[in-house]
Amino acid sequence: MKNLCAYCCLVGLYYVLLGCTSLSKEAPHQQDEVLYQVSTIDALLSGDYDGTVTCGELRQHGDFGIGTFNGLDGEMLQLDGEIFKIRSDGKAYAVPDSTRTPFASVTHFSADTVIELSGRLSYEQLCAYIDSLVPTENIFYAIKVEGEFAYVKARSVPRQSKPYLPLVEVVKTQPTFEFEHETGTLLGFRTPPYMKGLNVPGYHLHFLTSDHARGGHVMACTLGKVKLSIDYTSAFHMVLPATGTFQRVDLTQDKQEELEKVEK
Amino acid sequence: MKNLCAYCCLVGLYYVLLGCTSLSKEAPHQQDEVLYQVSTIDALLSGDYDGTVTCGELRQHGDFGIGTFNGLDGEMLQLDGEIFKIRSDGKAYAVPDSTRTPFASVTHFSADTVIELSGRLSYEQLCAYIDSLVPTENIFYAIKVEGEFAYVKARSVPRQSKPYLPLVEVVKTQPTFEFEHETGTLLGFRTPPYMKGLNVPGYHLHFLTSDHARGGHVMACTLGKVKLSIDYTSAFHMVLPATGTFQRVDLTQDKQEELEKVEK
Repeated sequence: MKNLCAYCCLVGLYYVLLGCTSLSKEAPHQQDEVLYQVSTIDALLSGDYDGTVTCGELRQHGDFGIGTFNGLDGEMLQLDGEIFKIRSDGKAYAVPDSTRTPFASVTHFSADTVIELSGRLSYEQLCAYIDSLVPTENIFYAIKVEGEFAYVKARSVPRQSKPYLPLVEVVKTQPTFEFEHETGTLLGFRTPPYMKGLNVPGYHLHFLTSDHARGGHVMACTLGKVKLSIDYTSAFHMVLPATGTFQRVDLTQDKQEELEKVEK
Repeated sequence: MKNLCAYCCLVGLYYVLLGCTSLSKEAPHQQDEVLYQVSTIDALLSGDYDGTVTCGELRQHGDFGIGTFNGLDGEMLQLDGEIFKIRSDGKAYAVPDSTRTPFASVTHFSADTVIELSGRLSYEQLCAYIDSLVPTENIFYAIKVEGEFAYVKARSVPRQSKPYLPLVEVVKTQPTFEFEHETGTLLGFRTPPYMKGLNVPGYHLHFLTSDHARGGHVMACTLGKVKLSIDYTSAFHMVLPATGTFQRVDLTQDKQEELEKVEK
């Protein structure tokens, strides 16, 4: 019922209030594309911040994605193959291939659906709109929103020192950044509900300004005129860290509550 | 504490009662091997019994594994590349490459640890012994037990007709088979706890007699003289069905209770 209400609300927003225009909405189909993931979100939530996979390796498996870096040194965003590190100063830095990641998700982005939107959609409205477009919540979707943003609130995480605190503690003091009338790209994934423990169920999006100078993990936004591209992804590949810390971390507990605190 | 007790108990069993002999126990290490999986266990529990992946495709991704067939037509067991269908008469049949599966897990088996055991270990003792051997419960293990079995209790599932019943209903009338003083192979996987919803956390083993004539999903056993081989597997690849039934199945509910009824 909740979903139906959200759908009706969004249909209304779409046709009446916002004047969105569908430029090319192909018939929904699944492509044999893969979401490649390093480690699990619950390991990251537990403070397992040092992985073994390099950004060079990551780039072999995708040109588009999000994640973080060893020591939790900032938010990762990969766009058109290039990997950016958005540190706790809110600035985006180029990343050498040798930099390692404890958690990341990437794919080779190839849009199945492209729609132009021209209204002031909030983050929640954008998510509900995508919910109403896609054929099922049981596969993965890579999501790219490019264009003008009336407002973006983002955060990054400060680099940690050992002994590492759990992520839910780290984000209590996270720096946040606000952008107004900025052009850029919002990108990330919509992940199925059964992926709880492995990835973030629902939406997880990062932002990068069009001059590749600033960005972060998106907490709120108001869209302007943007192009929404969605890549249907029906395969998932996960590599688990060959580290002693990953081997020892307790992954038997439900961390959904911690995840919600971290993602909001 | 429970795990510690189980460990101590097993160490005692190992050195005192059973006279197990370690022939070649290599230092634990992770190999870049992949557990390839079709669909999710929760989709199967929900009655999504018709997949699109063929056994021919499955064989490209592994030579060892377990699963089932479209219409829930028996238990799948793959050994040395060959795929067997153990139907509800308890007999094993050869499977053409064109046969499709709604759920299966396979890997290219390559033992990291090989141990000879010569005591009358029960199923639970075998599992607790493997628990005590492996370095972490956070990666996957492919498990092969070859040799003499004092006793095996196995089941298979009868082929279903549409509209499909959920698996928890099907297994209420499942045929079971008992084997005594039989040679054969017990094989399957130990899966991490965080895979709940996607696969069966813990142990999931099928059995095939050495003449490849009979077998089933293992419910209980007593080992004789056997060789235990374990393949450490730290990558996971899942392909989701491109079917309307998979798209529509509700995968938001926790099905752990149903799974326990099905697996016991």
